[in-house]
Amino acid sequence: MSNYYELWKYLDIDIDRHDELMAILPDFFKDVYLSQKNRPEGMNYFNLVVSSIHGLRPKELVELRNKGKKVVGTFCVYVPDELVFAANAVSIGLCGGSQFWVPDGEKVLPKNLCPLIKSFTGAKLSKTCPFFQCSDILIGETTCDGKKKVWEILNKSIEIYVMNLPQMKREQEYKEWENELNLLKNKLESLTGIKVSNDMLASSIKMINNKRKALKRLYELRKQNPVPISGKDVLLISQIAFYDDPERFTQKVNVLCDELDERIKKGEGVFEKDAKRILITGTPMALPNWKLHHIVETSGAAVVCEETCTGTRYFENLVNENGTTLDEMIKNLAERYLETNCACFTPNTKRIEDILRLINEYKVDGVIGYNLQFCTPYAVEYYNVKKALEEKNIPILLIESDYTENDTQQIKTRVEAFIEMLK
Amino acid sequence: MSNYYELWKYLDIDIDRHDELMAILPDFFKDVYLSQKNRPEGMNYFNLVVSSIHGLRPKELVELRNKGKKVVGTFCVYVPDELVFAANAVSIGLCGGSQFWVPDGEKVLPKNLCPLIKSFTGAKLSKTCPFFQCSDILIGETTCDGKKKVWEILNKSIEIYVMNLPQMKREQEYKEWENELNLLKNKLESLTGIKVSNDMLASSIKMINNKRKALKRLYELRKQNPVPISGKDVLLISQIAFYDDPERFTQKVNVLCDELDERIKKGEGVFEKDAKRILITGTPMALPNWKLHHIVETSGAAVVCEETCTGTRYFENLVNENGTTLDEMIKNLAERYLETNCACFTPNTKRIEDILRLINEYKVDGVIGYNLQFCTPYAVEYYNVKKALEEKNIPILLIESDYTENDTQQIKTRVEAFIEMLK
Ligand code: SF4
Ligand code: SF4
Ligand code: SF4
Ligand code: SF4
Repeated sequence: MSNYYELWKYLDIDIDRHDELMAILPDFFKDVYLSQKNRPEGMNYFNLVVSSIHGLRPKELVELRNKGKKVVGTFCVYVPDELVFAANAVSIGLCGGSQFWVPDGEKVLPKNLCPLIKSFTGAKLSKTCPFFQCSDILIGETTCDGKKKVWEILNKSIEIYVMNLPQMKREQEYKEWENELNLLKNKLESLTGIKVSNDMLASSIKMINNKRKALKRLYELRKQNPVPISGKDVLLISQIAFYDDPERFTQKVNVLCDELDERIKKGEGVFEKDAKRILITGTPMALPNWKLHHIVETSGAAVVCEETCTGTRYFENLVNENGTTLDEMIKNLAERYLETNCACFTPNTKRIEDILRLINEYKVDGVIGYNLQFCTPYAVEYYNVKKALEEKNIPILLIESDYTENDTQQIKTRVEAFIEMLK
Repeated sequence: MSNYYELWKYLDIDIDRHDELMAILPDFFKDVYLSQKNRPEGMNYFNLVVSSIHGLRPKELVELRNKGKKVVGTFCVYVPDELVFAANAVSIGLCGGSQFWVPDGEKVLPKNLCPLIKSFTGAKLSKTCPFFQCSDILIGETTCDGKKKVWEILNKSIEIYVMNLPQMKREQEYKEWENELNLLKNKLESLTGIKVSNDMLASSIKMINNKRKALKRLYELRKQNPVPISGKDVLLISQIAFYDDPERFTQKVNVLCDELDERIKKGEGVFEKDAKRILITGTPMALPNWKLHHIVETSGAAVVCEETCTGTRYFENLVNENGTTLDEMIKNLAERYLETNCACFTPNTKRIEDILRLINEYKVDGVIGYNLQFCTPYAVEYYNVKKALEEKNIPILLIESDYTENDTQQIKTRVEAFIEMLK
């Protein structure tokens, strides 16, 4: 990996601290991932991407920057990649999933805060994340309190452009969001010096839709019994979706799906037939947060679906491709993005409809609500999620966790008891 | 107080639990308030209001309801009382400040949540608060995550109308807020069956401005050395401001101010001359949350100003009275309300300007940042507040607390050390 050192120095990475980080990841990945049995061949690409996570893709991004492209970092599935690519920039989803950065984040943030926010803040401030280091600008949003306020601290280290995401979904908020997308377009145009054309936006809408379709295809295959791919592997793919080159990513997912199609024909799977089927619902799981999936899938059950931002919320709902003018396309974008049901909206009853639908579609035996500690929107909303599931006699377990390993054993005990109880 | 039992039964109060609550309050009030020396005579009115808190004002409200008036409960200083009164309804600020209700709130809410939200939720669900019981409707808002989401739980017990408070303050958000005020007006009109007229809105704007002026006058007097009234007493007045009859309240505050004028002429005060002067900044202190003021003022210092929603944020900035049409008046309201600088906005740099200005105006020796536990907007914003004060060499101490008495001794130790250190 020594050839990446030059890259990291170029990106002003704190090499010593970065070495510490790099010393942990490979073993961790091996333990959680490479120990799995009967993994699809098609996972090799994703293994490679994650095993050289701070090299392969950052190197590409730096090369693109050297050719004059801008790199735009984002933090939420409401920020439309389509506009970024249409303005000839590259969009990467930056989401801290490692405990490594939490103490750095806590230097400027309260401890009682969602680990994801502390982690990405620490990643930036400690200069140990090449993705942050090669971003020209970050796009923030007013989703939850923590993110809404952290931009006021992070903007001392890098330019941040904040989008005002509405908190409700009435007719006027659709208009407001459309307007917000137009403002983002203007901002991106002035960043790249390139005017978004109809063709560019139309083609980036297609490109991102294709990515969504590939992920949708992958998820559809998980409906099979036995399930042909582990939840852990799909989670990894979802996490990589946020920062990989979209076209290559789409192609690799489709290749994997072809292989899974073959498995299904042969009735092959990675878990025994009739293994208990788990839906996870709640907050995102950013790379390398594999804790809950690992626990579930080493306890005899299979994770068959995630109603999270690193799951269905990322790819469900396509952007209508019938727009011809910029205004129409932006309206289509606004509509598609506001169809996503995150707890940062009030009310958010459609999320409960989503969960019930997914339980049915994926033939789920039990649901695990997963909330990152101190995530208030999901923690409060859980009350209504639980009530709705209990009314339908669907078992649900709440796991609230952070990025440490302190609670792993306790969660394992609770998850095992939960799976045991599913009939 | 036995004559109020009928009232409470009428309001469907849980009498047994309510008796428990009522058994605590008088002693608590006596310890914290009546033990103070040299209190102004003008405090007698406020003592009376608080000592029969669940009787006097609720009885009036029930009488008003019997005459056909509607009672509207609110939770945030961004919700304009003017519109409520102009629609011939009565506005009361509902804010849970008691630990008594927290366990009831925790039955439906996560423990890791701001005590204020848990407390008011518990107050409603336990049916032990006559103000909640006599509200016809509650007005919620999308300020912080906890409040934004709690409406989805509370709306099972009472009608809640939610206002979408913008999260930023650009030109478009002023327009959006104006529109939101128009929607509230429509809602109130359909609640009361009375159309808001120019005259009614103009006169309610005057009425609430007068209340603000009286509070402003009271605060001005605290700039004196020695300070003629304790911070604790002013806090009590501010808390009562939220639910008392506005005209009577204004008059009583002015009577008190006349008395304080006399004191000032004589050089009289409630603390020794040159006692250390403390500004408290942060989250609201709802009745009966007197903890921090009590600690500061029994440690030899005086609280001379509160940059909180139970302080300057409640009364600073008058509504421009030059509007003649409804549209103009609503625009004026929108502008005044968005001048309030709460951490639920991003950015919120003007709050720091406010703090610096108040430090100067009130000749403050030291600042205490007060954050209710798990209040993310204020907790994150504290980083920038602290930095701004440190740059000017102004001492600042952070106190994060809930409604229990568990941390009282520890806070006292820290506050004493802080006051000791002020030169
Ligand atoms: S959980 Fe909500 S706020 Fe967080 S990334 Fe997803 S959509 Fe955005
Ligand atoms: S998990 Fe929750 S608290 Fe954390 S960033 Fe997402 S919405 Fe905010
Ligand atoms: S602190 Fe902010 S959200 Fe809370 S009452 Fe005050 S203005 Fe409203
Ligand atoms: S104190 Fe903070 S968390 Fe609590 S209601 Fe006010 S803004 Fe929300």
